[in-house]
Amino acid sequence: MNTVTDKGVISARPMADVQGSRDHRNLAIDRVGVRSLRYPVLVQTEQGPTASVANFSMAVALPADKKGTHMSRFVALLETMNKQCQALSPEVMSELSRDLLVLLEANQGSLSAAFPFFIEKAAPVSGVKSLMDYQVVLQAESSPGKATVAIEVRVPVKSLCPCSKEISDYGAHNQRSEVTLRAEFAEGKVPSLEALIRAVEAQASCELWGLLKRPDEKYVTERAYDNAKFVEDLVRDVALSVKAFAGVVSFSVEAENFESIHNHSAWARITG
Amino acid sequence: MNTVTDKGVISARPMADVQGSRDHRNLAIDRVGVRSLRYPVLVQTEQGPTASVANFSMAVALPADKKGTHMSRFVALLETMNKQCQALSPEVMSELSRDLLVLLEANQGSLSAAFPFFIEKAAPVSGVKSLMDYQVVLQAESSPGKATVAIEVRVPVKSLCPCSKEISDYGAHNQRSEVTLRAEFAEGKVPSLEALIRAVEAQASCELWGLLKRPDEKYVTERAYDNAKFVEDLVRDVALSVKAFAGVVSFSVEAENFESIHNHSAWARITG
Amino acid sequence: MNTVTDKGVISARPMADVQGSRDHRNLAIDRVGVRSLRYPVLVQTEQGPTASVANFSMAVALPADKKGTHMSRFVALLETMNKQCQALSPEVMSELSRDLLVLLEANQGSLSAAFPFFIEKAAPVSGVKSLMDYQVVLQAESSPGKATVAIEVRVPVKSLCPCSKEISDYGAHNQRSEVTLRAEFAEGKVPSLEALIRAVEAQASCELWGLLKRPDEKYVTERAYDNAKFVEDLVRDVALSVKAFAGVVSFSVEAENFESIHNHSAWARITG
Amino acid sequence: MNTVTDKGVISARPMADVQGSRDHRNLAIDRVGVRSLRYPVLVQTEQGPTASVANFSMAVALPADKKGTHMSRFVALLETMNKQCQALSPEVMSELSRDLLVLLEANQGSLSAAFPFFIEKAAPVSGVKSLMDYQVVLQAESSPGKATVAIEVRVPVKSLCPCSKEISDYGAHNQRSEVTLRAEFAEGKVPSLEALIRAVEAQASCELWGLLKRPDEKYVTERAYDNAKFVEDLVRDVALSVKAFAGVVSFSVEAENFESIHNHSAWARITG
Repeated sequence: MNTVTDKGVISARPMADVQGSRDHRNLAIDRVGVRSLRYPVLVQTEQGPTASVANFSMAVALPADKKGTHMSRFVALLETMNKQCQALSPEVMSELSRDLLVLLEANQGSLSAAFPFFIEKAAPVSGVKSLMDYQVVLQAESSPGKATVAIEVRVPVKSLCPCSKEISDYGAHNQRSEVTLRAEFAEGKVPSLEALIRAVEAQASCELWGLLKRPDEKYVTERAYDNAKFVEDLVRDVALSVKAFAGVVSFSVEAENFESIHNHSAWARITG
Repeated sequence: MNTVTDKGVISARPMADVQGSRDHRNLAIDRVGVRSLRYPVLVQTEQGPTASVANFSMAVALPADKKGTHMSRFVALLETMNKQCQALSPEVMSELSRDLLVLLEANQGSLSAAFPFFIEKAAPVSGVKSLMDYQVVLQAESSPGKATVAIEVRVPVKSLCPCSKEISDYGAHNQRSEVTLRAEFAEGKVPSLEALIRAVEAQASCELWGLLKRPDEKYVTERAYDNAKFVEDLVRDVALSVKAFAGVVSFSVEAENFESIHNHSAWARITG
Repeated sequence: MNTVTDKGVISARPMADVQGSRDHRNLAIDRVGVRSLRYPVLVQTEQGPTASVANFSMAVALPADKKGTHMSRFVALLETMNKQCQALSPEVMSELSRDLLVLLEANQGSLSAAFPFFIEKAAPVSGVKSLMDYQVVLQAESSPGKATVAIEVRVPVKSLCPCSKEISDYGAHNQRSEVTLRAEFAEGKVPSLEALIRAVEAQASCELWGLLKRPDEKYVTERAYDNAKFVEDLVRDVALSVKAFAGVVSFSVEAENFESIHNHSAWARITG
Repeated sequence: MNTVTDKGVISARPMADVQGSRDHRNLAIDRVGVRSLRYPVLVQTEQGPTASVANFSMAVALPADKKGTHMSRFVALLETMNKQCQALSPEVMSELSRDLLVLLEANQGSLSAAFPFFIEKAAPVSGVKSLMDYQVVLQAESSPGKATVAIEVRVPVKSLCPCSKEISDYGAHNQRSEVTLRAEFAEGKVPSLEALIRAVEAQASCELWGLLKRPDEKYVTERAYDNAKFVEDLVRDVALSVKAFAGVVSFSVEAENFESIHNHSAWARITG
């Protein structure tokens, strides 16, 4: 063993900085950092900051001549965010991803936060209110003087099959589906998470609610039947909605139907 | 360090058996063993042995005065099973759980194997054939001279809501559901996995298939509509079916509907 | 179709209450309700209420002559809790489980909430502070005039193998482990979540932290080496700690080592 | 309802082909198909075909003027593969992805199969034999006259921290890690799955085995201690190994250390 300090006593002599030593393999690393780090967060919503719990990934580029990065500094950045009670938003993610470059002495960085997000919704007929949950991911990429942020929302909806409706004397199979919309917007043109979620829900056979009374259940049933859509229709209609947002730079839309007549999913994706 | 052997050389002197030493805390351990051990298996079916991959858990009771069990012997038992090409069945699981007691010098043991199981099914109208997959767990408990085996099958089905059908002018919400049947049978009275799965499927609003042609899809849609069931109906009807099996000693039936109008599940359980 | 209302118009005549009708199968249901319902929550801690997101399961017993339960009332109970900003604690869970009986007109009920829980910890040498996350489940069971609550904490720790230490000339394999402690306490004797978590951490080869500086990493490495424990030692030592709590009615302790020398886990359980 | 057939009777008149109708949104779909389809498979190994269970995803491009794809044909392709007992290999995946284009009348397609894969390994000192499991993904992309196949292997290994070893008087923290290697090779130059897995294992602090006797455990412990590697070292050394394979067209290497001193992972990636 190479240290000479007594056990349990911290030496006055600084400890060896193995990570900071020179690497001789001449191979740069695209990204190195931490994953699966859970932290309580505030999230910016249309009604102000609300609490959630996020799963963070953070990483930076490492030049060919450096042996290692400084893992503890990633966690230190989250501690700072937490202490300052900064509410997550695309702008704050962009800022944090730039702080990452400074803190880690890096020239490229990535930062993502995945968290459940809640919206209070009124049932369509009775108006009774309840929360619906959505999974959101904010993903920032930074280089000196530049940062881009992609927003991903996963929206559970109902889909009803047009073929089943057409060929059957009555009824039509329907099921829960999940639409994943991921988009990047020009600065100053970033819509709220709620606006993106509503844009998806409007294109489903029917949207979902946490709490429905009988008149609401009748509405949902008939609305879905009147509004049959294949998984192909779903991704096309959501893609057209997203294109209509001012300032959209790029996007992808995926839909997965957890088929109620099979034990597998129907799935489609459009990118633009 | 306490060994005196040269590095990399195995000493002629036997290595210390730490696990085999005496424990002084006077506290017996209910179960100790291994988990999340994946092994290729053969499974006994109505058509003979078929291949799958199982996730094994294995454990034994440890008396108060023993420090540790012999972890490598659990894996050795699977190696023996694999080498002998034994096909898993309730009887073989019972045998293996008794072997476990001998091998681990224990007086109580548990052994479980969870694996995907496939049945070839013919579509209801076109007759076209395809495989459907089910999750199965075989769980054995043994003590000297005695072993019991529980069979668990997880059967994905379709459920259609009677309330939605009743109150709506047309259509009815429906969704994928999962029925979990767990049962223990008297010796010599154990039904095949296929028989248990068919007993569950017969009680659903409709069963599922991997491959359906348009006439089949019409049949499935109308059959489910004609056969609306709440999650409560589903567990009751499956429970009645299970009670009708000769030799059933105990059972539990759970059903979970992945609701197509909510982002949560409806769920029910009957034990008997 | 059996309704006479015009499409899209809610009839003045009350809608049929299918769930409320009489059932003729003469089979009571142990539990029926909802699952996988995510809701933002406040959780009672030693420092006061803090925010988290919980996954709820809620269910009641259904008598043999009733066709169905009232699913929407489960969600209504969470809405009430949320509106009143009630912080979850064993006492509040017990209260909610009694409210469940009244609201659902039932004589037995179950209610569980699973959520991530955070504790700020100071690193062992540098004292630098960061959050650690734990999974907690509060599980209540109620019948008229009675409610019991079990607390489950899942605590990630480090384990170091005594056998590997004993037989090797240097080093010893170690790994991340998870200890799951579940316990029920007499009324008025319920410890804080933090106290239970600390009781588990104190028995590991070493506890974990989110953020460690080099002197801390040296401490953790040496502390684990000085404190080697088998998975059997871990469950025994935690079980002894739990028994020392005043008012403990029943408990189970499980430990799972995600072995660093195998691709499976070592696992043990003690109940008392 | 629009059909005129009697319920349950298949009309002589062909059923409407809704999917085959013309779409007017003028929006092509990148990929549409099925997901999460489990099927038993044979996998080509150095010892010949062995059984496993695969999770398939299959999708094709859909032109702007077509309303939908023919979902049942994806499943039909798997049925054909299963009936012919074709063993999966990069070549067979490439063939299947070309069949997909013909069957679905498409000009681009994707096909992936994810499955557990087993290798019999001899323990390093005792030579005792046991199986180790690895997750493998074969991913094919096809267009007329062209198909490329990427191979992904997920290899669980042991990593031991150089910093912890350097600064501590004794011991060093170590843990289970997972290395994910994904690579594409020129035709005729595709190595076996076993060769890729061995290339990864050779670069870890130490590889893993299912079954180890005490002399093996001593070897693994000391070998890892003698061979300390950061997550950065791990991805660099594996990347250098992969580059040395003849015919490698592109690759990515990721490593994730399930840290035994934290409740999060250290992670790195190199692409080339």
